[in-house]
Amino acid sequence: MLKELTVENFAKELASKSPAPGGGSAAALSATLAASLSSMVFNLTIGKKAYENLKDAEKECIINALKKTEVLREEYLDIMQEDTTVFLKVMDAYKMPKDSEDEKNLRKIKIEEAYKLALEVPRRLSEKCFELYKYIEIAAKYGNANAISDAGVSALMIQAALEGASLNVKINLASLEDIKLKETLLKETNTLIKEGSIKKDAILKIVENKIGA
Amino acid sequence: MLKELTVENFAKELASKSPAPGGGSAAALSATLAASLSSMVFNLTIGKKAYENLKDAEKECIINALKKTEVLREEYLDIMQEDTTVFLKVMDAYKMPKDSEDEKNLRKIKIEEAYKLALEVPRRLSEKCFELYKYIEIAAKYGNANAISDAGVSALMIQAALEGASLNVKINLASLEDIKLKETLLKETNTLIKEGSIKKDAILKIVENKIGA
Repeated sequence: MLKELTVENFAKELASKSPAPGGGSAAALSATLAASLSSMVFNLTIGKKAYENLKDAEKECIINALKKTEVLREEYLDIMQEDTTVFLKVMDAYKMPKDSEDEKNLRKIKIEEAYKLALEVPRRLSEKCFELYKYIEIAAKYGNANAISDAGVSALMIQAALEGASLNVKINLASLEDIKLKETLLKETNTLIKEGSIKKDAILKIVENKIGA
Repeated sequence: MLKELTVENFAKELASKSPAPGGGSAAALSATLAASLSSMVFNLTIGKKAYENLKDAEKECIINALKKTEVLREEYLDIMQEDTTVFLKVMDAYKMPKDSEDEKNLRKIKIEEAYKLALEVPRRLSEKCFELYKYIEIAAKYGNANAISDAGVSALMIQAALEGASLNVKINLASLEDIKLKETLLKETNTLIKEGSIKKDAILKIVENKIGA
């Protein structure tokens, strides 16, 4: 399991000539770190003086946000593994025999199937990245002022993850023959990048204003 | 050592209410992954058919780039640790006694010193992030077409690292009393963000064109 590697060995494995883990898993790890940073901001906020002065509804909102970022953190970590698993399936499909016409046809079908499966993982990741913004916004608005830069880094890393996942959707799409699916997914992924980017900029504005540097 | 934690435990530790590791170390890890991805692109390029058809000077350029990304990967990983170490020194300075006027003055001096030290680490990180662009460009131009999305994710993650490090420079700057140093560093860090962003966009353009989705 990738998550059981040390940070040092994960980086080594990523750098190696083995194609998996690759950018998809790295994007998922970026998302994991983004969720972790938001969790940290909430953990450094709850119970502090400024927090105690908030309204009950606001406190509940923060506690709920922490629960969600913790769930997302685990989900991103699972996707990190999944991305590598489905990528290896594409590689397996390419290794199928292609001597007879029947073999060639079967191989082609299996490759198309494997790519469709492979693109579903970064597609899901990009959608799940977008979900985190709701909670980073809460971290930026209500979070401990000393940890406000961490909410900013969370936004930067989730957008890198979202766009990184989208690049993986696109490279898998390029190998597909299903034109209609290609068009739909391309439009969907570009919209998500744009909307994510707007969220990121809005959060960074809040953060920079609070830092006041 | 942070790099000896498993990926899963690093994410847990980052999410915890202990303020270190925080966004500075997360940014350094993002840089580490960015360098790893560029290394992977070179490792998946060297020795392949398309590579063998390149001119000797181009081959040499790629081999040299791999050496550099491997050095940077180690350096970012060291900075990940260093950021946490210097942050803990700021915390220590705040814990100094402040009963007498002498103690108060000494504490104030030590806090200012600790912040100056603490901001040097993300400042160095942001500069070292910018260095990677030179090699990601080579990966995007000459890299194995099947791994071209990885060059794109590398650019996304190094810019997240650069901007994340810059937020950490800024939050430390905000605590400084040295106005002149503040102005100089703020200008420097904003220039670096802007120039990095231009590099990132140029690389993503090459990558998207090559993917052709």
